[in-house]
Amino acid sequence: MTRKTLAELTELVGGRLKGDPATVITGIAGVREAQAGQITFAANVRYQEWLQKTRASAAVVKPDIDMPDGMPAIVVERPEAAFEKITRCFAPEPIEYEEGIHPTAVIAESVKLGVDVSVGAHAVIAPDVVVGDRTVIRPLVYVGHEVEIGSDCLIYPNVTIRERVRIGDRCILHAGVVLGSDGFGYQRAADGSQEKIMQTGTVVLEDDVEVGACSCIDRARFDRTLVKSGTKIDNFVQIAHNCVIGRNAILVSQVGLCGSAHIGAGSVLAGKASVNGHVTLGDNVMVGGLAGVTRDVPDGMRVSGFPAQDHAQELRLMAHIQRLPELVERIKKLEKRIRELEHTTDDDC
Amino acid sequence: MTRKTLAELTELVGGRLKGDPATVITGIAGVREAQAGQITFAANVRYQEWLQKTRASAAVVKPDIDMPDGMPAIVVERPEAAFEKITRCFAPEPIEYEEGIHPTAVIAESVKLGVDVSVGAHAVIAPDVVVGDRTVIRPLVYVGHEVEIGSDCLIYPNVTIRERVRIGDRCILHAGVVLGSDGFGYQRAADGSQEKIMQTGTVVLEDDVEVGACSCIDRARFDRTLVKSGTKIDNFVQIAHNCVIGRNAILVSQVGLCGSAHIGAGSVLAGKASVNGHVTLGDNVMVGGLAGVTRDVPDGMRVSGFPAQDHAQELRLMAHIQRLPELVERIKKLEKRIRELEHTTDDDC
Amino acid sequence: MTRKTLAELTELVGGRLKGDPATVITGIAGVREAQAGQITFAANVRYQEWLQKTRASAAVVKPDIDMPDGMPAIVVERPEAAFEKITRCFAPEPIEYEEGIHPTAVIAESVKLGVDVSVGAHAVIAPDVVVGDRTVIRPLVYVGHEVEIGSDCLIYPNVTIRERVRIGDRCILHAGVVLGSDGFGYQRAADGSQEKIMQTGTVVLEDDVEVGACSCIDRARFDRTLVKSGTKIDNFVQIAHNCVIGRNAILVSQVGLCGSAHIGAGSVLAGKASVNGHVTLGDNVMVGGLAGVTRDVPDGMRVSGFPAQDHAQELRLMAHIQRLPELVERIKKLEKRIRELEHTTDDDC
Repeated sequence: MTRKTLAELTELVGGRLKGDPATVITGIAGVREAQAGQITFAANVRYQEWLQKTRASAAVVKPDIDMPDGMPAIVVERPEAAFEKITRCFAPEPIEYEEGIHPTAVIAESVKLGVDVSVGAHAVIAPDVVVGDRTVIRPLVYVGHEVEIGSDCLIYPNVTIRERVRIGDRCILHAGVVLGSDGFGYQRAADGSQEKIMQTGTVVLEDDVEVGACSCIDRARFDRTLVKSGTKIDNFVQIAHNCVIGRNAILVSQVGLCGSAHIGAGSVLAGKASVNGHVTLGDNVMVGGLAGVTRDVPDGMRVSGFPAQDHAQELRLMAHIQRLPELVERIKKLEKRIRELEHTTDDDC
Repeated sequence: MTRKTLAELTELVGGRLKGDPATVITGIAGVREAQAGQITFAANVRYQEWLQKTRASAAVVKPDIDMPDGMPAIVVERPEAAFEKITRCFAPEPIEYEEGIHPTAVIAESVKLGVDVSVGAHAVIAPDVVVGDRTVIRPLVYVGHEVEIGSDCLIYPNVTIRERVRIGDRCILHAGVVLGSDGFGYQRAADGSQEKIMQTGTVVLEDDVEVGACSCIDRARFDRTLVKSGTKIDNFVQIAHNCVIGRNAILVSQVGLCGSAHIGAGSVLAGKASVNGHVTLGDNVMVGGLAGVTRDVPDGMRVSGFPAQDHAQELRLMAHIQRLPELVERIKKLEKRIRELEHTTDDDC
Repeated sequence: MTRKTLAELTELVGGRLKGDPATVITGIAGVREAQAGQITFAANVRYQEWLQKTRASAAVVKPDIDMPDGMPAIVVERPEAAFEKITRCFAPEPIEYEEGIHPTAVIAESVKLGVDVSVGAHAVIAPDVVVGDRTVIRPLVYVGHEVEIGSDCLIYPNVTIRERVRIGDRCILHAGVVLGSDGFGYQRAADGSQEKIMQTGTVVLEDDVEVGACSCIDRARFDRTLVKSGTKIDNFVQIAHNCVIGRNAILVSQVGLCGSAHIGAGSVLAGKASVNGHVTLGDNVMVGGLAGVTRDVPDGMRVSGFPAQDHAQELRLMAHIQRLPELVERIKKLEKRIRELEHTTDDDC
């Protein structure tokens, strides 16, 4: 078990120590789950209340957080970053994976593997695939014909990469991901039947893209569905054919992009947000959770609701909706007062 | 084909028989699909109308359901439970699975398998895994390093269990489930790039947990994402890092929990409901379908809408919204009447 | 690289050529991504603006689309259909898949394979399965006991087909699909625990059904969950136990159907739409994106919102909500004017 004093951890993260420097820390935990001996953190006023009740022996906190009496703390400007360093310090021993090509992997003769590539048990690599140096392909992965995978990628079990998909360097594909499935396109025939529109394009992930478990990126009708460098995609995200996602974007779980949606660089789509087909979001756009974006959004705008609009405006409307019963009361009173007035003026006449 | 008389079925479920006890029943079906010879059920007034048109030869019904003239019935207080017994009686012959370890399974030497464990074709079990007695691992499953699986579990094909995940007894993991994928966490660097936050924790399922097809439970940033005993999770459910779900909860399909959400015991989240990060739901909370919970919910409360609020209040607001056009008309009339009054009083002056 | 003149392409699609017939086209692309040498298309006024800026060398357009000056075009009534022909013409060479049964596939002795069936590496086919002629089963697929698959089907990698599921002819199952997972049903016992309700039925797909990546269709509690001929299902679609989906329906990504929902022929459910349990949609119903259908919908109706209602009515209400702040202002003014009137009439008295 890793043991560190609070003094050692303070030195590690560069903060200011409050309380006994000799306090021994044996692990880390969330504020609500922490036990004696563990260090927790509070990056957020939301945690303030929980801090009062935590069993943790110390906490990493922002300067503006009130600590419970007598509880030691490391005070830093960026508790998230500091805690990340402490997390690494207490991380369990890394697992030692067996390297090399497992004898049960089925790898076509024409496949070109770089230096120090690992391929797990029962993985299947189709002809004419190219895999860059040090890339790790875990068990039960399928890599289709003519796929190109860069170097230093990590591909978890049960991933499916369909034919001709291209993946850059340092990409991570979590378990169950599907890249290059057919885009969803049909033409309704006169008899009502749906004729399949060919999806002849592919999917391109640039460098440093991470795709969460069970997410799907469909191949383009033609050309390619494109995810640019540094973009991070959570679990269950649906990216339809011909979408283009800019650099360093964030797509949270259960987001859905319809066909040919364009997302600008640095944009963040919160959980379950949707974007209609052919809609363009600018750079650094923020889309709220559960929002449905139906129109183009300019750079830097924050939108929410369905149909999504300026977030401040959406909040105003939601507040108005909450006050609808009161509004109805006001109208009733007006009606009553007018009746009385009408009666009065009638009397006058 | 199984053949039972209505008298035999009535004896089986303990209800009151109406109509001919010798009626022969050869199968079960939904009220809209049933054919002659089949028995159906109506637990719900919703089915009343369909019962009038059904082709079924008999029905299991609550006492307050009106039966079509001359249609035999078994009348019981709890038709659901009674029908479950009849379902088992007409269930197809159970499939006889081959037991034991399939020769194509790849099982590391250090793996400890309990008594009567089955491992299917092309399953892969990494080093230092422990599997309890009678647990069944179907084909094409991946079990990562140092995973612990209890006894009497059933793990369907194409499941991925990442390293160090711990699973209790009698758990069921449906096809495509991913346990222990990395939590979704990044820090934005000064240049806009997203730096990955290590996810050093794991996932713990206690006993009797069932996880639906293609659902994902992410590993914790530290410590563990926890699903307590008896909780049942439907398909496509997303459980983010560091969530804690109490005992006997129900999470219906496409539910999404953001990081560190806590769900109390016995709570029910209907389809597509979402819970924001760090939000706590008490015990026996009911969350409506499509709801988005943004704030803590006390024990026993029923919430719906987005942002989720008291369900009765939400219904009231929705009714008010439906009456908005009428409200506008009332305001128009008020404006007209006031204009007239103003005219009248002007005249007066 | 395929090279075609605009004259050749015009002949192919049967339209009217505007501009230089000798223009050389070497590829196709979306209007925003196109480069010199490529042909693009504009089926939609939405594209009009982008057409003005495109680098494409030509476009396939509707007669009512204004072309940029000097840009060659093929003018047709149905640009989508015309472009589909051109897409096929420029499609990359089809991949030549190895046919036959891969030696690593595990196929039970009792399995009956039709003529020219292909089974990929590490696929697993359980006993008593029947597979029709020319059906292709890709690597890492699991086919459970007593499954029946028709002819000319295409089953992508990492698909799970559970026991006794029946699949018609010419069906396509994309990667990660799960057919026949247990329906989600429990009875709460007196102690709060959830008792599993047996799911003894199965799943039936008729002919020409396509199921998108990672979609799940649960087996019925009894009888079968049914998808009729010609229906197309996108990625991440959840179809619960005992649903019945009519012919030629379209279910877009992330749609969720609760148990026993019925969807009529030719109906279209847009992305993320939901249908409550036991609800029936008629034929040719249109359900808007993100809608939640809680009540039966008659043939041909278009609904949206949550709870879903007539689409025109939903739009009206949304417009009213947008005008709520204005409404509040009108009420404030009324209140002020009434106060003044009351003051006036008070004076009168």
